[in-house]
Amino acid sequence: MRKAENRKSLYLTVIVKQKALHFHQEKMDRQYLIEQIKEKKTYLCVGLDTDIEKIPEHLKRSADAVFEFNKQIIDATFDLCVAYKINTAFYEAQGIKGWKAMLKTVDYIPSTHFKIADAKRGDIGNTSHQYAKAFFETFPFDAVTVAPYMGSDSVKPFLDYKDKWAIVLGLTSNEGSKDFEQLRVNDNYLFEEVIKKTIKWGTDKNLMFVIGATKASEIASIRKLIPEHFLLIPGVGAQGGSLAEVSKHGFNKNCGLLINASRAIIYAGKNENFAEEARRIALEYQTEMKGYLRK
Amino acid sequence: MRKAENRKSLYLTVIVKQKALHFHQEKMDRQYLIEQIKEKKTYLCVGLDTDIEKIPEHLKRSADAVFEFNKQIIDATFDLCVAYKINTAFYEAQGIKGWKAMLKTVDYIPSTHFKIADAKRGDIGNTSHQYAKAFFETFPFDAVTVAPYMGSDSVKPFLDYKDKWAIVLGLTSNEGSKDFEQLRVNDNYLFEEVIKKTIKWGTDKNLMFVIGATKASEIASIRKLIPEHFLLIPGVGAQGGSLAEVSKHGFNKNCGLLINASRAIIYAGKNENFAEEARRIALEYQTEMKGYLRK
Repeated sequence: MRKAENRKSLYLTVIVKQKALHFHQEKMDRQYLIEQIKEKKTYLCVGLDTDIEKIPEHLKRSADAVFEFNKQIIDATFDLCVAYKINTAFYEAQGIKGWKAMLKTVDYIPSTHFKIADAKRGDIGNTSHQYAKAFFETFPFDAVTVAPYMGSDSVKPFLDYKDKWAIVLGLTSNEGSKDFEQLRVNDNYLFEEVIKKTIKWGTDKNLMFVIGATKASEIASIRKLIPEHFLLIPGVGAQGGSLAEVSKHGFNKNCGLLINASRAIIYAGKNENFAEEARRIALEYQTEMKGYLRK
Repeated sequence: MRKAENRKSLYLTVIVKQKALHFHQEKMDRQYLIEQIKEKKTYLCVGLDTDIEKIPEHLKRSADAVFEFNKQIIDATFDLCVAYKINTAFYEAQGIKGWKAMLKTVDYIPSTHFKIADAKRGDIGNTSHQYAKAFFETFPFDAVTVAPYMGSDSVKPFLDYKDKWAIVLGLTSNEGSKDFEQLRVNDNYLFEEVIKKTIKWGTDKNLMFVIGATKASEIASIRKLIPEHFLLIPGVGAQGGSLAEVSKHGFNKNCGLLINASRAIIYAGKNENFAEEARRIALEYQTEMKGYLRK
């Protein structure tokens, strides 16, 4: 109970702070994100890949089970992370009800947090413009993940919004990344070619990259290519084994990393205890991250 | 007025036919699609990229203007086309209201027609599985367009559904296609590498490709690579100039083409006449297509 009260009081502190920092509520810019990382001593992003099949039984009776689950996860983790990433696929699979849960969730995330729509969109210019409108105007996200295959006009419309971000797929962590991303092109890997070209379309103030780097050597060489940009890194194990490596080789002078954990956190507990378990795992990440930030 | 009655009677014929062909209502397989093309003498796909900003003024007063627009376009064109393609971005940009309009639209399309969600989705396996569920189970589409960048596990979940289709991006028609799709890889263009690898993951019964071929030589060489697969071709001008070229070089023995026109048809008229104007342009396409099919 005390833990819950502590959380609540922390939350109130955040709310008060948000009001004081009204300017920042509407401006999730690079400087503010860096400040949040320093202040909260974490670069954790919690991934809300909320699968209706996997949420605890007792919540399934709720009228809006997905939102109720997300709300409790957010309440339990917001002081340990700087970002939330909503994987749109899990909401789309639920149809209109899912989109409503997504809207309620993104509205519920404190405005101090960086809100990512992990949507992997990308199409010809006028269509990408509609996607940007969807996630930056109709929904209040700060960033969208973007698939680069179709090139410049598929990415640029996401860069036209002030203080909004495109997070472009560079190297992903899945098995299939070998099929195309890791093909050799002009003495580079394709994903390096994507990074080199894409950085010309934006700046480190509106552009990040998804880098599913699992090897230290990979992330080190990507860091050389883009020393200033933020990297969104999925696929770091709950054990924290590779968190050390990724942090060591991926840090720049402003941290420059957002490390996402989804299933490891949100499904850490299976029952009534799921939010506490989620907090416990998030705290493990944050404690480890605090150590790396101090170095 | 007679024209409207003719349309209505045609529509009733289709309805009766659908009931008679109940089997086919649930099975949009390759054979059925080929039969529809032969019978209706058209391989036209009408693209419903319905932009709320661009629909006629008199419709904007309607409670569900986007659906009302789509309904009238469908009523005016269904006998001239075999497919409708819904560009999801335009609906997402309208938020939950947009998703409702999308659902009503796809429900309204006759089950004789091939229903494409032009969504360009693709993510790691478990996430792509959720997207497939969204478009094949929650929404009743027959096909989804898929972005290939993330490789095999991002594409395969869309191929796991019987009588459903993944339409994978090969070569797109936009300016940005030069940035990555047309890079040289292993003595191929990247888009050729995508096609060569992707055809191993599916068959010509569950896999098509988006080919924005604007040059005859390109489409001829792609046809050599995939003689049997259907190609979804956007970007053919309303003038029909390149329709001749694309048909000449893209046909296989079963036609094998779906040619999409969106703006040229749906925004042909600006006022109360929009549906009649849409029909007029669709009829121009269909008349020309009928000629090529006869050869």
